[in-house]
Amino acid sequence: MMLVVLGNTEISTIPGISVAGATPELTKLTPPADAEYLFYEKPKIIDAIPVTPEGHPTPAIITKAAKELVDFPIVIVRGGTYLAPLVPHVHISDVVGRDFRREKALPEVEKIIENAKLFGEQLSKLNLREIVIGESTPGGTTTAQAVLWALGYDARTSSAAPSNPQSLKEQVIMEGFKRAGIEKGGFADEPLKALEEFGDPMMATVIGLSQGFKGNVVLAGGTQMLAIAALLKAKGEDLSRFMIATTKWVVNDESSTFKKTAKDIGIIYYYAELDFSKSRFKGLQDYERGYVKEGVGAGGAVWLAVKKGFTAEDVAKKVDELYERLMEIGGKG
Amino acid sequence: MMLVVLGNTEISTIPGISVAGATPELTKLTPPADAEYLFYEKPKIIDAIPVTPEGHPTPAIITKAAKELVDFPIVIVRGGTYLAPLVPHVHISDVVGRDFRREKALPEVEKIIENAKLFGEQLSKLNLREIVIGESTPGGTTTAQAVLWALGYDARTSSAAPSNPQSLKEQVIMEGFKRAGIEKGGFADEPLKALEEFGDPMMATVIGLSQGFKGNVVLAGGTQMLAIAALLKAKGEDLSRFMIATTKWVVNDESSTFKKTAKDIGIIYYYAELDFSKSRFKGLQDYERGYVKEGVGAGGAVWLAVKKGFTAEDVAKKVDELYERLMEIGGKG
Repeated sequence: MMLVVLGNTEISTIPGISVAGATPELTKLTPPADAEYLFYEKPKIIDAIPVTPEGHPTPAIITKAAKELVDFPIVIVRGGTYLAPLVPHVHISDVVGRDFRREKALPEVEKIIENAKLFGEQLSKLNLREIVIGESTPGGTTTAQAVLWALGYDARTSSAAPSNPQSLKEQVIMEGFKRAGIEKGGFADEPLKALEEFGDPMMATVIGLSQGFKGNVVLAGGTQMLAIAALLKAKGEDLSRFMIATTKWVVNDESSTFKKTAKDIGIIYYYAELDFSKSRFKGLQDYERGYVKEGVGAGGAVWLAVKKGFTAEDVAKKVDELYERLMEIGGKG
Repeated sequence: MMLVVLGNTEISTIPGISVAGATPELTKLTPPADAEYLFYEKPKIIDAIPVTPEGHPTPAIITKAAKELVDFPIVIVRGGTYLAPLVPHVHISDVVGRDFRREKALPEVEKIIENAKLFGEQLSKLNLREIVIGESTPGGTTTAQAVLWALGYDARTSSAAPSNPQSLKEQVIMEGFKRAGIEKGGFADEPLKALEEFGDPMMATVIGLSQGFKGNVVLAGGTQMLAIAALLKAKGEDLSRFMIATTKWVVNDESSTFKKTAKDIGIIYYYAELDFSKSRFKGLQDYERGYVKEGVGAGGAVWLAVKKGFTAEDVAKKVDELYERLMEIGGKG
C-alpha cells in the first residue's frame, strides 16, 4: 500500500527555489494535480500534468507506471495544501507551510501530527506489514535542508533542477535562522521546534503516520525523507523499521549529500536504477541529465514493482507508454 | 474494518422530522460530532455529544463501546456534510442533500459515486475480506423512505423517535413526488434518478464504496440501509455479498416495515440483541422504549464485537461505563 502525502509551503513561490511547476505560482497546484494524475489520464484541477519550467514531466508518471504494472492501492493524504485534490483523499489539514524567513513555518505542527497519527493507528489495525509513504511538496527540499541544519546535520538536499540552487537555498535558510535566532544545530534536541519553525505540513503528516503505524515504513522520496528520518530519530524512534526508497538520480546527485547524510542519520536506503536514456522522449531522457530526479513516491513505487517481479526497465517502458498517451490527449505541460 | 459515512440533508431541519440532534438546527452538527466522539472523550466541533431533544445519547456510544472492546479500525468518510469533522477522514464530497420538496436532492450523485468507488477500489486491493459501513445522517430515514417509494417498495422507515412521525414523512415525500412529477414506483428502473431526486450524499457514498470494494459488505444501519440495498439491487448488484447489521430496536419497530422490506428486497440481516433495560441511566434505558434505536454503525459494531467473542451484554456494560465517563466530564447533551 502506498500513501502519497500532499504538502505546500510558501517557500516554493520564492523565484528560483522550486522547479516543481512551470512557474512559481503553479507550484501551488502541483500536489493536487500529481494526485489526480495517478487516478486519471490527466489532472482535474488543471488541464495538464505538472512540468518543470522547461517542460519535464512530473515524477508522478513513474509512480503511475508502477501502479499500472502492479495495481497496488494508493491512498492520497492531504497533509496541507492550498487546494484539495479532486480525488478521494484523507484529510489531515488544509494549512500551508509559511515562509520561514518571516514567521514560524508551521504553528499547527502538533495538531497535524496528532491527526496523522490517529489515521496511522487505524492502518496499523489492518495488520499491514508495510506501508510506503511518498510525497508531493514543491519547495520541500529547502524546508528539508533547513530542518536538517536546525537538527545539526551538515547536509545539502537535492533539487529537481539539474543545477541545484544551493546558494539561494542557503541564503533563504540563513534568513530563517536569523529570524528564529538560532545557529546550525540549534534545535538538535528539539525536533518539534525544528519542524514548527522551518518545516512543512507534509513532514508533520509523515511523522504522524509513521508514529501511528507500527509496522515497517518505507519513506519514498529523496533528501526530503532524510529530514523526516532525522526528525524521527531525534524524537527517539528506532529507525530499524524504516527505510528510504528513492532513485539513482538522487543517490548519484553530487550537489547533494544524500549518501553521507543517510549514513550520519543511520537510515538504510534502496534506490531504483531507472534508466531513461533510451526513452523516445526528450522530456524523459533529460531525467538522466539531472532534471526532476524523484517525487510522488517514484522510488518507492518502483520498489513495490520490483518486489512483485518487475524490473526497473519494465517501469521505464511503461513510463514511455504513459508519456505517449499524454501527448495524444494533449495533457502534457 | 469499519467505515462511518457522514451525510447531511436539509430535510433534517424540517421541524419534527429528525430527533438526531437537540434541535433541528443542531442536526447539522451531529455527523461530525458523532465521528469525533468515536476517537475522543467528547466531540471537538461542539462541547457535548449529540442527543435527542429529550437528552438521549447518540448511538455512537454503542459503536464506541464495541470499538473499546475489540479495537477495530475505524475510518471516517465525509460523504457530504455542512462541516468537516475535526478528525482525519476520507473526503468524498462536501455537498449536502437538498430539500427535495423544492429541488433535486443530489445533482452531484454521479461524481460522489465515482469518488467513493475509487476509494472502495483501493480498499479492495488491501485484500480485506469484509468491510462494515455505518452512517450518521440526520433526516436520513425520510430520504430513505422517499427512495424506497420511488423504487416501488411499499415501505415505512423507522425513526429515532419513539413515535415515528410517519404522517409528516409521507407528506414531505408526497410533496417531493409532486415536484418531480412521479408516483410511487416511478423510478423502479432508474435507481440513479431516485437517488438524484430524493437521496442524500451518504447513500451515494455507500453505493460507491460498495461497488468499488469487491469483498463482503456489511451495511451497518437500520431502514436507511434498506434503501441502499434496494438501490444496489436496482443497479444490478448481486446482493449475496451484502448483509445488513442493525439492532433489535429497529427490527422490532412496529411502526416500520424493516422485516417485510428486507424480505421484499432479498437482503439478509443480523440484529444486535442489546438490552439497556438494566442500565443505571435513564437516557440509555429509554432505548428500550423506542428512543434512538440505531445509527453510527451501532449494529455493525456489535456484530464485530460478537465475532470476536464478546456478548451484547459486554457491549451494554461498556456503554454504561462510557455514559458514566461522559457525565463525569460534562460532555453529555
